[in-house]
Amino acid sequence: MPNSSDNNNSYFLGIDGGGSKTKAIIVDANNKVLGEGISGPANPLHGFEQAVNSITESAEIALANSGLSISLGDLTAGVGLAGVNLPVLFEQMSNWQHPFGRMFLATDLLIACLGAHNGSDGAVMITGTGSCGFSYVKGHPYTLGGHGFPHGDKGSGAWFGFQAANYVLMSLDGLKAPSAINEKLLSLLQVKDGLEMVEVIAGKPAAFYAKMANLVFDAAEQGDQVAQEIVKEGAEYISGIARQLLKQQPPRISLIGGLTPRIKPWLDDDVKNILQDPLSPPEIGSVIYAKQQLALL
Amino acid sequence: MPNSSDNNNSYFLGIDGGGSKTKAIIVDANNKVLGEGISGPANPLHGFEQAVNSITESAEIALANSGLSISLGDLTAGVGLAGVNLPVLFEQMSNWQHPFGRMFLATDLLIACLGAHNGSDGAVMITGTGSCGFSYVKGHPYTLGGHGFPHGDKGSGAWFGFQAANYVLMSLDGLKAPSAINEKLLSLLQVKDGLEMVEVIAGKPAAFYAKMANLVFDAAEQGDQVAQEIVKEGAEYISGIARQLLKQQPPRISLIGGLTPRIKPWLDDDVKNILQDPLSPPEIGSVIYAKQQLALL
Repeated sequence: MPNSSDNNNSYFLGIDGGGSKTKAIIVDANNKVLGEGISGPANPLHGFEQAVNSITESAEIALANSGLSISLGDLTAGVGLAGVNLPVLFEQMSNWQHPFGRMFLATDLLIACLGAHNGSDGAVMITGTGSCGFSYVKGHPYTLGGHGFPHGDKGSGAWFGFQAANYVLMSLDGLKAPSAINEKLLSLLQVKDGLEMVEVIAGKPAAFYAKMANLVFDAAEQGDQVAQEIVKEGAEYISGIARQLLKQQPPRISLIGGLTPRIKPWLDDDVKNILQDPLSPPEIGSVIYAKQQLALL
Repeated sequence: MPNSSDNNNSYFLGIDGGGSKTKAIIVDANNKVLGEGISGPANPLHGFEQAVNSITESAEIALANSGLSISLGDLTAGVGLAGVNLPVLFEQMSNWQHPFGRMFLATDLLIACLGAHNGSDGAVMITGTGSCGFSYVKGHPYTLGGHGFPHGDKGSGAWFGFQAANYVLMSLDGLKAPSAINEKLLSLLQVKDGLEMVEVIAGKPAAFYAKMANLVFDAAEQGDQVAQEIVKEGAEYISGIARQLLKQQPPRISLIGGLTPRIKPWLDDDVKNILQDPLSPPEIGSVIYAKQQLALL
């Protein structure tokens, strides 16, 4: 087993695996990015095989991209994954016979938070396909939301799309007033009525609904009242997450995830005014996590 | 092919197939029930094989229960199924090489409506695991809602359970005030916190959530404000369905489905006051449908 000074001279793999894609980076001891790779989803809740295949594939692509003449077995991996907040999935992933020299497994939330604050204490609200809040202060991790789709993850891309679909179906039935969302959604889905729409959306996962989120924000920004009510309800939830996280007294708080530019203007002022830009992306957070864990060995 | 006077002397099979169970009855020419059978789910949206197996099994049980010395091939079947409002599923079920002498396929909505009004024109609101509205007036079928779970079916058992689960998760996160629903739901699911709760509910179908509906009504009846808001929102949707159906001028309108006794007291007075009791159950509606179709041949 290598000692810690050996490890400080090695190369590191940082993985950020989520419900829609997996990002891998190869970095040196100074976190300089030498190679990058993207692969498919890696949330073990949606399948262990798919998750480990995506992680391995993204790592192989990143390694090839780096041009380094080493193998996966020479890398110390920090792996941040959605889904492993569930103990059963954390255990399953921990038992994976991975191809890396060493693997440190963490939740997607922890690595996002470590990345956003470059390894220092802080809090993050994440809203992309899913949503949640997380803080890491004085060694104490604290999670809010992130319960998944469709039963949780309010204020996420999937939630906005889901609310839009709910509304449009009721509106097409004559049970709600028409909204600018109707036409945008039917057009995006390439369907002409509720019956066709149901055939397309039935049984679809979060990533499918998340694709409808932008049109809700478009309609809201164009003044559509229904869209504004949906956006305000989702943004109010994210503001509530922020206030709850602030009780943990994080030195910094950031909003991250793909929906950030759309939802930020709709947050309450007291929240909007204290947000700070994230310092590094989640995959760097994975590397930071691996290095912190190595230092503890 | 038998002529219509032969058919009038035969035995009929009536099937009511839904997302949680299938009911079969054998009746004589006067709709006297001679045998009954219950089997598993028969919504082809959740699997063609399961649907046809449940239909066949329930029919065999009903036939055995009748004590008649005939085979399935001697029966004229009226088959009402959830899911076949989707054209692709109607076609798939129509092409089934069924074991009956003759089969007439209809939606669960049409046979429920024919049953509730003994073959005459009328309208029904159905709220059980799912929800929807349907009217059949002067040969014109008209459907409202029934889009499925989780994207539609507001005011259904699944919808009430889903709203309860949404709320409890937010409440356990400190983002919503506690409600009497919290303890009832955790107790029903036999879990102690949000993390355990998510492991139990993730990916569950409508029938699972529908089991939580009664506790929402219990809490509402005990005065819990959160539960009352959920119940009122769901009931308001069903009242809206009723008003929309009344535009079709149905001579009678009934509320049917497993949630009927719970939700009826919460409907708006203008709707509650015109509801009439259903005359026959949906499986009799299936028989009525088969006989009506035979008469048209």
